[in-house]
Amino acid sequence: MAPAEPNAIPFQALGEVPVFAEELEGWKGYIEWEKYPEKKKQVEELMKKYDFPDPPEFQLVPLPDTNPILTGERFKQYHYACGLQHIVDISWKYVLKEKAADMIHVLQFPYNGEPKRENLLKSEISSNADFFVRNHGGVPEIDADSFFLDITGLVNEPKRLTLADLQNEALFPRQTNVVSLQCSGTRRIEQIHEYPGDGDELINAPWGEGAIGTAKWIGVSLKKVIKYCGGLKDGAGHLELFGADTYFKKGKVYNYAVSVPWRKVKVNEVLLAWEMNGESLPRIHGFPLRAVVFGYIGARSTKWLYEIRAIRDPSSAPVQRKEYLYFTPQVGKQNAMYSNGFSIQDMPVSSAILTPRDMQHIIHDGKITMRGWAYSGGGHWPIRVEVSGDGGSIWYEVPFDKMTTKYYYAWRLWEIDLPVDAEGWLEFCVRTWDNALNTQPTFVRSAWNWDLHVTSSCHRIKIYSVNRSRPATAARLKLMEEKGIPFAPITKPLEIDLESDEQYEAAMEARKGRDPTE
Amino acid sequence: MAPAEPNAIPFQALGEVPVFAEELEGWKGYIEWEKYPEKKKQVEELMKKYDFPDPPEFQLVPLPDTNPILTGERFKQYHYACGLQHIVDISWKYVLKEKAADMIHVLQFPYNGEPKRENLLKSEISSNADFFVRNHGGVPEIDADSFFLDITGLVNEPKRLTLADLQNEALFPRQTNVVSLQCSGTRRIEQIHEYPGDGDELINAPWGEGAIGTAKWIGVSLKKVIKYCGGLKDGAGHLELFGADTYFKKGKVYNYAVSVPWRKVKVNEVLLAWEMNGESLPRIHGFPLRAVVFGYIGARSTKWLYEIRAIRDPSSAPVQRKEYLYFTPQVGKQNAMYSNGFSIQDMPVSSAILTPRDMQHIIHDGKITMRGWAYSGGGHWPIRVEVSGDGGSIWYEVPFDKMTTKYYYAWRLWEIDLPVDAEGWLEFCVRTWDNALNTQPTFVRSAWNWDLHVTSSCHRIKIYSVNRSRPATAARLKLMEEKGIPFAPITKPLEIDLESDEQYEAAMEARKGRDPTE
Repeated sequence: MAPAEPNAIPFQALGEVPVFAEELEGWKGYIEWEKYPEKKKQVEELMKKYDFPDPPEFQLVPLPDTNPILTGERFKQYHYACGLQHIVDISWKYVLKEKAADMIHVLQFPYNGEPKRENLLKSEISSNADFFVRNHGGVPEIDADSFFLDITGLVNEPKRLTLADLQNEALFPRQTNVVSLQCSGTRRIEQIHEYPGDGDELINAPWGEGAIGTAKWIGVSLKKVIKYCGGLKDGAGHLELFGADTYFKKGKVYNYAVSVPWRKVKVNEVLLAWEMNGESLPRIHGFPLRAVVFGYIGARSTKWLYEIRAIRDPSSAPVQRKEYLYFTPQVGKQNAMYSNGFSIQDMPVSSAILTPRDMQHIIHDGKITMRGWAYSGGGHWPIRVEVSGDGGSIWYEVPFDKMTTKYYYAWRLWEIDLPVDAEGWLEFCVRTWDNALNTQPTFVRSAWNWDLHVTSSCHRIKIYSVNRSRPATAARLKLMEEKGIPFAPITKPLEIDLESDEQYEAAMEARKGRDPTE
Repeated sequence: MAPAEPNAIPFQALGEVPVFAEELEGWKGYIEWEKYPEKKKQVEELMKKYDFPDPPEFQLVPLPDTNPILTGERFKQYHYACGLQHIVDISWKYVLKEKAADMIHVLQFPYNGEPKRENLLKSEISSNADFFVRNHGGVPEIDADSFFLDITGLVNEPKRLTLADLQNEALFPRQTNVVSLQCSGTRRIEQIHEYPGDGDELINAPWGEGAIGTAKWIGVSLKKVIKYCGGLKDGAGHLELFGADTYFKKGKVYNYAVSVPWRKVKVNEVLLAWEMNGESLPRIHGFPLRAVVFGYIGARSTKWLYEIRAIRDPSSAPVQRKEYLYFTPQVGKQNAMYSNGFSIQDMPVSSAILTPRDMQHIIHDGKITMRGWAYSGGGHWPIRVEVSGDGGSIWYEVPFDKMTTKYYYAWRLWEIDLPVDAEGWLEFCVRTWDNALNTQPTFVRSAWNWDLHVTSSCHRIKIYSVNRSRPATAARLKLMEEKGIPFAPITKPLEIDLESDEQYEAAMEARKGRDPTE
C-alpha cells in the first residue's frame, strides 16, 4: 500500500518569495491579514502559481506507523510560498518544549496531537503537557506586556484592553471554571475505518479518543467585558473571535476567526482565559489569552485572541461558515453545500473506553477492569455510564462512586470491573446518558457524516478474552508457561500439538465418533 | 506498519543437506514418506536443528500490496532444509505456465491463487487458467504412462490400476459431472478483518471471493473402482486418499492425505478425474489423476492421487485430523483441541458479490448492476438469491432467468439490477437460500471461528452511491466535469467552493438563519 503521506516534492520557490512583516512589536509570528485586503490579494495570486502536493491519502489506505503520523507537507508549503517558514518551525519548537514526550503527533503542522490514553486517566484534570492540541496554524509568540485585545463592531464603546486591564479585578471579577474542551474530530478514526469521507486540505486529522481534555481555567467572562464596553448595539447577535494565527483555505489567507452567539456569552459561558491549571497558558494553548467556550466544540475557543467583533450573523470566516459542518448520511462529494450541513456548536453526549485498548488480549479471572471518560456539552453532564461486554445487548452501570466529580461543563472519568465469563473475541462498548436523557447513537454508521465530525456513537473495542477460571484454559495456560510459550501475538501458531493422539482418540470415543453410525 | 512477510533471513544449511530420492521413475517431485518411517524420522530430527522464520503477521497488520501477496518463506525453507528446493521451483514454474497472467497470488509457496473476479463471471464453467489453486505442497510431475493408483487396506482385492485401466470403458463406465470446488478458506479475509484468528505454519491464506470455481470433470466413480476391487471388507468406513505432494506439519513430513466416508462414495459423489473442461488435468490441478468430491470442502479432492486405502475411521493424517476444523466462537488459542472442532466435509450454502467491488464509488441513474455466485454443498443447490442495498433489511430477489443452470453439485452465477435511490456509503449484501431452506448467517461475527474457515455469512460490500437522477447531484457532476475534476478518489478535497457566498446567503435566508430568533 502507498504510504499515507508520500514523499512530497520538496518546496521550490517560483520567483521571489514575499516578506510579510509581523504586525506589531512583541507579536512574533502574527501577520495581520484581515485588515489588509491588498496583502490577502497578493497571497491569493501567489498561491495560484504553485502546484502544492496533494493532501496524503490516509482514508483509503492504512495510516503510517510513524510519529508524527502525518507531517502536513501541503500546509507547510503554503507557508513556505508566503515566506512564513519560521511559523512552521516555531510551531514544532513549542510541541517539543511544552508537550509530553509521549504525545501522539497526529499531524506535525499545523500541530495536532493527543496524549497517551493512560495519561488522561491520571486525574479528572488533564495536565497541560497531556492536553490535546488542535491548531489550525502556527504558534504566535506574543509578549504579555505588548498584548492587547480589541473589542470592535456593534458594541457601544469599542475599546482596547491590555492583559493588565483584563486581570484588574477592580474592572472585572475573576472567574474560575473546570471545563472540558473537545475537538469535534475526537474518535474520527472510527468513522474513517467504517467509511472514508471528505478529505480536507487542512487534514481532517485521524484522531483517536484523546482529542479531549479538562482544565481549570481562570479569566474573565466575556459578558463582563462587553458590559464594560457599554453593551451591544441593536442587531448584534454574535461575537466574532479572531486569533493571531495564520490560516489558509482554498488558495486564500486569513487570520483564524469563528463566532459565538451572544446568548451563549450572556449566560457567562464564554471565558477569556489566561491561566490553565494554575499556570499561564502554554504558548501552544494560546498564550497570553484565549477564549474558552463551555460545552461547545473546541474550535470556538480561539487561541491568541486579539480581537472580538460584535456582528449581526454568525461569522462568514471559513472556519465558521465552511468547516465544522455536520452533514446527513446521504450528503457527500456529490451534493454537499455549506448551507446543507449544520454548524457544530454544542457538543452531544459522548464517551470512550481508554483502557484496555482495541485488539488487546486479556487474561483474567472473570472480571475485566475498564476505564474511560464521559462527557456532554451544552451545559449537560453525564449522569450514567454503562458498559457492555457483548456488543450492546446487556449493559452494566458504572457504580456512582467510580465516577469523578460532576461539573456542568466537564467530563467525568469512570471505572468498572466488568464481569466477563465468555472467551474469545468480544465486543465491549460504552454509552453515556446525560441529565437531559440523551444517550449515544448505537453504531458508527448511525451517525456517520461526510466531514467525519462528532463521532458520538457508542465507543466499541474488540478484546480477546481468556478466562483463567475455566479449567481447560487454565490447563492450556499452564502448559504454555511450562514450555515458555508467550500468549501474544494471538495469531502466532502454537508449535505444540493441541492434543495428543491418545487424548484425541479418547475424546472421539466419548463423542461416539465424528459421524453417526446409522 | 511492519510488512506482513518480513525479509526473512535467507536459508542457511546447518550441516549436510540430505538427498531424498524420488520414489519412482517418471514421478518427478514425488517423495514417498508414508512407507518409510526411517525417512520421516530423519526429517523430524533435521527440522529440530533449524530456527525457521516465523510465518508472517498479516492478521494484526494490513496485507502487503504486492503480488504474490505472501511468499511462504517458512515453508520454502522447510523444503530447502530437506534438499527439496526443486519442489519449490517447479511449483512456481507451473503457476507461470498454467495459470492466468492476472491471477492474484495469495501465497507463492505452496501455491495458493485466486482469479480476477471478472474472469469468474465469464461463464458458469470456470476456465482452467482461472480456476483457483490451493496447494499444500509442490507440484509433482508424473508421466501419464508411468502413473498408477494403488487400492489398498480393507478392500477384498487390493489392486494397482494404471491410467489406461481407469480409462478403459470396458472396465469402468465413464462419468461426467459439473462440480464446483470450494476452499473452506473462501472469503477468509472478511473474518480476518473482523477478528484475527489462528495463524498456521502453512499460512491460513487470506482468500477473497475467488477461492471457488466450477468445472466439467470426466473420470470414473470411486464406487466402481472399489466394486472392481471386490468391495470393502467388514468395518471399512472411510477411504483414505493419498497425494504425491509433500506436506509438513509441526516438524514432521507427510504425503498429503485425507479421507472421505464410504457413504459418500456409495452415492457416486467421489470421482477419480483425469479431465477438466475437455482437457487433461493441468499439472497444478493434479495431473494425471485427482479426486473430485462433490459438495465437500476442496481439501478432500486430493490431487496427484496415487493411493486409496480403505480404513475403519476417518484418516489420522494431519490434514484430516488436525486441520480444517470448525470451532465455536469461544474456542481459540486458550482451549482449542482437535477433538472440539468439527471436521469440515459438506460445505454450507454461501454466496458472494463479485462486481462491483468493495469500496468502489458508483455513479448511476437509480439502478446498480450486481453479479456474483451462489453455492450450496452436500448435494444442495441454490434456489433463491437475494440482494440488499441497505445492509440486510430490504431484500430483492434475483430474477430466476438471471441465474445460470441448476446443478446438484455446482454453483449458480447471478445478476441483478438493484434499484438504488439512496446516496452516500451503502452496505450491499447478498444471501442465498438452498433447496433445504438453509440460508446464510447474517454477519461475519455470527459465524466467526478460530481457524477462520467457511466464511458463509452474508457477503457485504461498501459502495459509495452517486445517484445522477437527483438534480443536486447532476449539477455537481456537471460542474466537476466542466472543471475537469475527477470524482475519484472520493477522499480528495474539492478544490472549488461548494457554494458561492451569494448562494449560501440565499439558502440561509430561506432557512431563516442557523439559530432560532426567539
